[in-house]
Order: sequence, then structure tokens, then C-alpha cells
Amino acid sequence: MITKEHVSKKFDADLEEVRTSVLQMGGFVVQQIEQAVEALSTGDEQAIEQIIKNDHRVNAMQVKIDELSCQIIARRQPTAGDLRMIMTVINTITDLERIGDEAAKIARMAKLIYDTGRLKVPRFIEIKHIANLTIDMVNKALDAFARLDPSVSAKIVRQDDEVDEEFRSIIRQLITFMMEDPRKISTAIEILFVAKAIERIGDHAKNMSEYVVYMVKGKDVRHISADEIEREVNE
Amino acid sequence: MITKEHVSKKFDADLEEVRTSVLQMGGFVVQQIEQAVEALSTGDEQAIEQIIKNDHRVNAMQVKIDELSCQIIARRQPTAGDLRMIMTVINTITDLERIGDEAAKIARMAKLIYDTGRLKVPRFIEIKHIANLTIDMVNKALDAFARLDPSVSAKIVRQDDEVDEEFRSIIRQLITFMMEDPRKISTAIEILFVAKAIERIGDHAKNMSEYVVYMVKGKDVRHISADEIEREVNE
Repeated sequence: MITKEHVSKKFDADLEEVRTSVLQMGGFVVQQIEQAVEALSTGDEQAIEQIIKNDHRVNAMQVKIDELSCQIIARRQPTAGDLRMIMTVINTITDLERIGDEAAKIARMAKLIYDTGRLKVPRFIEIKHIANLTIDMVNKALDAFARLDPSVSAKIVRQDDEVDEEFRSIIRQLITFMMEDPRKISTAIEILFVAKAIERIGDHAKNMSEYVVYMVKGKDVRHISADEIEREVNE
Repeated sequence: MITKEHVSKKFDADLEEVRTSVLQMGGFVVQQIEQAVEALSTGDEQAIEQIIKNDHRVNAMQVKIDELSCQIIARRQPTAGDLRMIMTVINTITDLERIGDEAAKIARMAKLIYDTGRLKVPRFIEIKHIANLTIDMVNKALDAFARLDPSVSAKIVRQDDEVDEEFRSIIRQLITFMMEDPRKISTAIEILFVAKAIERIGDHAKNMSEYVVYMVKGKDVRHISADEIEREVNE
């Protein structure tokens, strides 16, 4: 009996370690997005290089957590809720790693924009706004994961619709901007890729929030609407 | 002893079922890309609607295979190579599902281009070429998965560099096209999103080929170069 409790306690500690690592990785990735968006307005070369370099750390975090998760499956043979937790971790860090890639892409675009001396970033206010929306989504999804709280998922899915709408609006504005001054087409395309990267971050945050519903409720809600998710969560 | 063998045979049958399902999903997804690219040149409305509708089938396949994989982990408690196989399946179908999303996006762009009566697709030859490159990558990655063959992974990673180079070339051509005739900026942006979707498919194929190395060799090669992958595979 004591042994069983001990084994179980070690198992709990393993799960806790993995959960904490995911949250650390999440915190770091959010910082990468924030700094990349900041670099778009400052053009700070050192900051840009640092963000690009830091992407290796995000990748290393994913590899480490993936290994840890596989070890837990092999050694502890989790079932039901514990297994769902591990699967959620594995899925979540895939999305976090790709958010990291998008942050690095934004930094590379900032570099490109400032390297060619085109200092004024068109539609920066709108970019900043959509970036804040998606950062909020990522933070909410991480919070939901930390608190095992599926209730916020439908809200994040709706926020993603808002992000998509903002994205389309930015594209329309950029098209007008390009038509007015064709010499600025190159810069506009770079900003378009920044907007696209931010829109993708929203998609990943949405995925992450859906995994939390799976983890807690055991329901796969990846391909259903916000209303349906709400019903599943309240069931 | 007989029981053990029986259990093991059922386990083998389970793994085989999952592997076959992944290959079926892969085949269907490749067909979705091919038809979406075809629709770009024909503008065939019915075909476009069908591709967009079919994305639900891709999603359903992912959900089913995911469930099956989790059941195998819970019931059979696989370790070592068997566990790596299941993890590879779970990762692979995530990428296949996202390739499916990109195919549906291409179809939606085709719809947008033909709905507004802008019949001539700019840079279609180049789009067709980069699409063929990425379809070849996806097929190779699926083949490598089917034959448990990690030897092609480095090649696919190098093909992805080629895809990225082609993508940048298409963007440059589109920028020139837009500067020459600013009235065509909207259509050019739609083609740009098509090119971006195809470039993403290449990234996913690259991921899939890297999982095969993990499955067979137990090495995580996601964040290393093609040369390093070659060394790992030949070790």
C-alpha cells in the first residue's frame, strides 16, 4: 500500500513537472511574440537577432518535454485522464513550438523592413491591435491549461473569428495602400506576412484551448463550432 | 504462452490498422491538394465546393485515428519502438490534417478568383510547379512511413529548401506583376496566399519525414539540418 502511494506520488510529481515545463515554455513563447511585435516598431537590431536566436530555446523545450512525456507513458502507463493530460501536453507543445516559429518570422520581417531602410511600418496600429488579441488568446489558453478549466475555450474560438476578421481587414487596407503607392508594394507584402504570422498564432491558441476541453472532458472538440463547444463544456 | 502470442497478434493487428488508416488519410489528402491546384486552372465550381466539403472527412479521419491511437496506448501499453510508432502516427495525422486545411484554403482562393471574374491566374505555371514539388514531398514522406524507411528524410528536408526558394521567387514575380498593373493587386494577393498554402504543405511534409526518423531510429531530428539528419540515419 505504501509502495503504491509512493509510486503514485512519483507519478504525480512527473505529471506536475511536465505541466510546469509546458507553462514555462508558454511564458517564453509569449515573450517572444511580444518582443517581435515591439521590434517591428523600434527596428532594434540586437533585439531582433536575440528573438531569432531564442527560437532554438523554444525548439529545445519542445524536444525535452516530448521526451519527458514519452518516458511517462512508457514507465507509468497512464490511462484515462492521466493519458489525456499527456496527450494534451504533446499537442500543446507542438502548437507552442509553431507559435515560436511565427514569432521568429515576425522578427525576420522586422529585420527585412529596417534593413532596406523603409522605416515607417504601414498599418502598425492595426498590427499591434491584432497582435494583442492573439497574445491574449495564448495567455488565456495557457491559463485554461494551468487551471484545468475548459470553460474559456468557446470564448477563445470566438476571439479567433475576430482575429480572422481583423486579418482580412488589414489585407484590404494593405491592398488600398499598395494601389495608392505601388513603390511601397514590397514593404506592404512584408507587413502582410507579419499579419499572416499573427493570424496563425491565433489558430494555434485556438487549438490549445480545444485540447484543454479534451483533457478535462474527454471530448474532441477540434472541428466543431464555438456554440457546440459551449454545450460540450456545460454538459 | 499461447495467450501472450494471441495478445501480441491482436496488438500487431491494431498497429497495422492504425498504419493503414494513416496511409488512407494521406492518400485522400494528396488527392485534395491535387484537385485544389487543378481547380485553380479550371475554376470548376462543383469541384471547388467538393474539395471544401471534403475537408470534414479529413478532420473526421484525424479524430478517428487519434482515438484509435489513444486506445492502443491505454490498452496495450506500448513501449520503445511500438510507442514511438504510435507517437509518430499522432504527429503525422496532425500534419496531414493541416495539409488538408491548406488544400481547402487553395480551393477557397480559386473560388474567390473565379467569383470575381478574374479568369487568368497569374504565375500559374510557377504555382503548378511548386505544387508538384510539395505533392512529391508528401508522397515520399507517406512512402517512408509505410516502408519504415528513414533514408529519404534528408532528401525531403532539402526539397523543402527548394520549395522555400521557389516560394520567394514567386513572391518577387508577383510584386513585379503588381507594380506593372496595380489594378491586379487583389488577384495577385490571392495567388500569394495560394503560394503560401503550398509552401506550408512542404513544411508539413518535412515534419512528417522527420517523424519517420524518430520512429525508426529513436532520434528526434526536427530541429537539425539535412546533413545532420543524414548522419543520424546512417549511424
